[in-house]
Amino acid sequence: MARLIPLYIFSLLLSQRVHALWPQPRSINTGPSALLLSPSFTITVAVPNAPPDLLAAVHRTRAQLNTDKLARLVPSRGADDLQALAGARVLPGLTLHLDGDGDEGHAPVMAIADEARAPLERRDERYSLDVPAEGSQAVLSARTTLGLFRGLNAFAQLWYFYDGGARPAPAPAEDRGGTAPAAVVDAPRSSAGSASGAGPWVYMLNAPVKVYDGPAYPYRGFMLDTARNYFPLSDIKRTLDAMSWVHLNTFHWHIVDSQSFPLVVPNYAELAQKGAYSADAVYTPRDVECIVSYAAERGIDVLVEIDTPGHTAAISNSHPEHVACAEASPWSTYANEPPAGQLRLASPATVNFTVGLLSAVAELFPSTLFSTGGDEINARCYADDAQTQSDLGGRSLDQALDAFTRATHGALKKLGKTPVVWEEMVLNHNLTLSNDTIAMVWISSADAAAVADKGFRFVHAASDAFYLDCGAGGWLGNFPTGNSWCDPFKTWQKAYVFDPLADLTAAQAKLVLGGQQLLWTEQSGPENLDPIVWPRAAASAEVFWTGTGRDVRSALPRLHELGFRFRRRGVRAIPLQPEWCALRPYACDLTA
Amino acid sequence: MARLIPLYIFSLLLSQRVHALWPQPRSINTGPSALLLSPSFTITVAVPNAPPDLLAAVHRTRAQLNTDKLARLVPSRGADDLQALAGARVLPGLTLHLDGDGDEGHAPVMAIADEARAPLERRDERYSLDVPAEGSQAVLSARTTLGLFRGLNAFAQLWYFYDGGARPAPAPAEDRGGTAPAAVVDAPRSSAGSASGAGPWVYMLNAPVKVYDGPAYPYRGFMLDTARNYFPLSDIKRTLDAMSWVHLNTFHWHIVDSQSFPLVVPNYAELAQKGAYSADAVYTPRDVECIVSYAAERGIDVLVEIDTPGHTAAISNSHPEHVACAEASPWSTYANEPPAGQLRLASPATVNFTVGLLSAVAELFPSTLFSTGGDEINARCYADDAQTQSDLGGRSLDQALDAFTRATHGALKKLGKTPVVWEEMVLNHNLTLSNDTIAMVWISSADAAAVADKGFRFVHAASDAFYLDCGAGGWLGNFPTGNSWCDPFKTWQKAYVFDPLADLTAAQAKLVLGGQQLLWTEQSGPENLDPIVWPRAAASAEVFWTGTGRDVRSALPRLHELGFRFRRRGVRAIPLQPEWCALRPYACDLTA
Repeated sequence: MARLIPLYIFSLLLSQRVHALWPQPRSINTGPSALLLSPSFTITVAVPNAPPDLLAAVHRTRAQLNTDKLARLVPSRGADDLQALAGARVLPGLTLHLDGDGDEGHAPVMAIADEARAPLERRDERYSLDVPAEGSQAVLSARTTLGLFRGLNAFAQLWYFYDGGARPAPAPAEDRGGTAPAAVVDAPRSSAGSASGAGPWVYMLNAPVKVYDGPAYPYRGFMLDTARNYFPLSDIKRTLDAMSWVHLNTFHWHIVDSQSFPLVVPNYAELAQKGAYSADAVYTPRDVECIVSYAAERGIDVLVEIDTPGHTAAISNSHPEHVACAEASPWSTYANEPPAGQLRLASPATVNFTVGLLSAVAELFPSTLFSTGGDEINARCYADDAQTQSDLGGRSLDQALDAFTRATHGALKKLGKTPVVWEEMVLNHNLTLSNDTIAMVWISSADAAAVADKGFRFVHAASDAFYLDCGAGGWLGNFPTGNSWCDPFKTWQKAYVFDPLADLTAAQAKLVLGGQQLLWTEQSGPENLDPIVWPRAAASAEVFWTGTGRDVRSALPRLHELGFRFRRRGVRAIPLQPEWCALRPYACDLTA
Repeated sequence: MARLIPLYIFSLLLSQRVHALWPQPRSINTGPSALLLSPSFTITVAVPNAPPDLLAAVHRTRAQLNTDKLARLVPSRGADDLQALAGARVLPGLTLHLDGDGDEGHAPVMAIADEARAPLERRDERYSLDVPAEGSQAVLSARTTLGLFRGLNAFAQLWYFYDGGARPAPAPAEDRGGTAPAAVVDAPRSSAGSASGAGPWVYMLNAPVKVYDGPAYPYRGFMLDTARNYFPLSDIKRTLDAMSWVHLNTFHWHIVDSQSFPLVVPNYAELAQKGAYSADAVYTPRDVECIVSYAAERGIDVLVEIDTPGHTAAISNSHPEHVACAEASPWSTYANEPPAGQLRLASPATVNFTVGLLSAVAELFPSTLFSTGGDEINARCYADDAQTQSDLGGRSLDQALDAFTRATHGALKKLGKTPVVWEEMVLNHNLTLSNDTIAMVWISSADAAAVADKGFRFVHAASDAFYLDCGAGGWLGNFPTGNSWCDPFKTWQKAYVFDPLADLTAAQAKLVLGGQQLLWTEQSGPENLDPIVWPRAAASAEVFWTGTGRDVRSALPRLHELGFRFRRRGVRAIPLQPEWCALRPYACDLTA
């Protein structure tokens, strides 16, 4: 027979997307030209009094241009591009501008960290990026340093690397563009090669590039549970780095739970002392400050969760007086998973304790958001607890929960916090919550409309799309063949095709703040953190930044490039296909 | 209500198992006494002319006793054991003996490496271990160095570590036992603490321990696919280490496939040159020698697989003349996964080429086993290939396959190899295979009886129990929500409850050589190798070593201990439960 022509050759011709950008910008226009990055490429920060975290971000971006070394994902790994590079111009530098300085009468330039922790509705992450094809200076503009930060991240993703080989023809002389009023210049320390002559080459193929970008949704998160199993700071910091590379902006830190209480809270140190897995497996106030700062400098707000009144068995180690059904048996009567234990929500002493505890935790986290949890409250635990029955004094459980929640949320609101709760607090208990409360829809994405009908803003965090732990089998003991409650595995595709507005009216749709993927860690630890999260969690990052798409076919080549880049940067993102497929976009698609 | 008494306290009292041993020995008797490891603990090799790999294994074992530092998996992490240590004797050393030297008239002592590569039926992995409670020398005996190696591994697993605290009462004086005719003494370089006074303590709680052990099945393997995605040598070596810690004895190396050909074969170097993912992503003859030696010194035979005639598209890069339907489209017409491509089995030139290639590969691997694959042969590929239709010259495809297989297996048998094939070669093609051919049952464990009915010995490698890649979702592109063909995830429990003799007659049962878990790497790479394999692959290691059990409830605490030990030794085994559960055996069991 005649040798059949591979389908993917046609597919490549049909594809108009620019690879290597994740998330896809809201608006991007590209051209047909190759463009080389000058070995002396310089990032100029034309921002008066540029804050140190912006300068640090510029420095990291400049380093990534040298160290990413993402070879093109084609069989030649870029050798075929040398011809295109023959006539390519050389990009001498990128200039960063803050728009609107004049309008605001020289308002002081805010740090990325401060912009990142501003209330959701005040954050401005928009940027525009203009990379000309003819070798003049590229320009990145935004109204905030946070916007510039997002733009730097996108800029770093535009480039490929090819190691070696001479261009077939000499390049035109460099045009170094104008000299901007440089506040700071971040130039490479050593020249890795010459822009004319032989490589290595750092280049793009789609110049000119014009990007106007900004997020479709203000909340784009990732949740990590550090209570089922503990994660050292280095793992969290690496995760924050990875989050920032896909424009995620909220680290939802499910920091304590019934299994352990690793957070060292000032004036409540006994909770971690007796509730952490070990003296080393803790987060001290200094650790928290380190994480919060590290996150903020990378455009990420840290939303801490102290789940109440359920999921609190670990508090019983130091405060048995505040916990009903602590480690009661059989656990399945009293909780959704072992060990059982819930705060005695009807006890005035316990309400006071909880208010004090949450207030102390709130002081550690500068975010305007604070989650008090509220999921999976077990009624039988309270029914069998003599003290709670006495404390109720004729009130129903929901009435007591309402008082408990008014007390805790009231205290948090005095500290300037907006309460965040799991969906049951909105749907199940007939509570009076303040209007600004944010709900997280987790049980099912089908519950979003009901939450919206209650008038609350909400975050998509549904187990049927976004739970990264599902599909790894049941983790309970004595369970020979069982699978988990939320099987099957939630593929990146499943998250990627998620429609944030599905089955919502226009009025309901206005309440969608965004969404997040989540890692509950019954069967996870530092050992599998990277591979179970990445690149999957990049799926929702694009869904909630770009807001459209959901075409897994066109997304996969870009996701491969992101995975390769992550690995170059030290995050152990798994391959999603054999490398043979990664090098041949569409060649491993399902066929009809 | 009264505080409920946790169920696990009763459960602990009921449990008679010794923790920390994996796989469970065939026969073990334990006592009630604590026993301390002397800080000057010494391993004496009372073996004349002990081979260097045995001495190296002794050295590694001695180091593990210092560095494992497995704290007891209870909430106190061992502090509660101090009382028991008060009266404990101190073990001064372990002596290794080879039994039966006299009987065999001073036959030279074989290296572990040589024993490990002996034919399956000649390997002797049995050992006995006697650890007295009263402080006299422990004794490890075997008829082979391979048996001693298994015993050393078991011995290293007996010990817990507690860091700090004084024993309530002074320990009795040490009894250093007799002085054996020491060929070599492996003593610690520095004393980590004193056996009397304050810790740290290395100890056991079940002395005396008497073990008579040996495998239920001679073949206990793990398969890694290094063709879909490439794995550096360091990953393979770490995997071999981990395998040796659970007495696995066969590394089935699925080294090449349609996606890539990383093996550099002498005289066939063009295959890797044009078929590897990159010039770095190869295994040179020196690399192979390194892996084969590293494995053998750890009691592991390397069974290489060159899958033929299917799964050979990568050969077409250098030898298009030998490959039908190479990268043909649509791939799903011509192969089970992309890219398509099969050796032109009816072509005399291709038969010659294949015989030469397999013979050259066989020279690189000293094992007596060699797999020629034989799975998933696609008839349409040959039907649409004009050359094959001509080459067949009236023969049926199965007749041509029979001739092809006679040629390749004949050549391998001349080199002393026993052919290994996937089950289709036995069940589907009406081939004449030599009686000693070994089949691997992969499509379904239900096929075992049919394979046995053909009279062939076989290895359990069933996708429904042992495929570690299943359950991670479909990996093909353009596949928005689909899951994989072999969902759901194969939990460790699923592998552990596997009965090697299920539905087999006594005659069929004699043909069971053992079994293995397998990692196909469409969605795996170095990033997730450890967490996707461990501790799951330890499940089959125990099934095929101990041969009984399958009680996941009693196994889980030991598997937790193995996981903690693996992590101490640098293998990223995932936690199977929240640490809270790992510290409380049976507390997280399903309740009725």
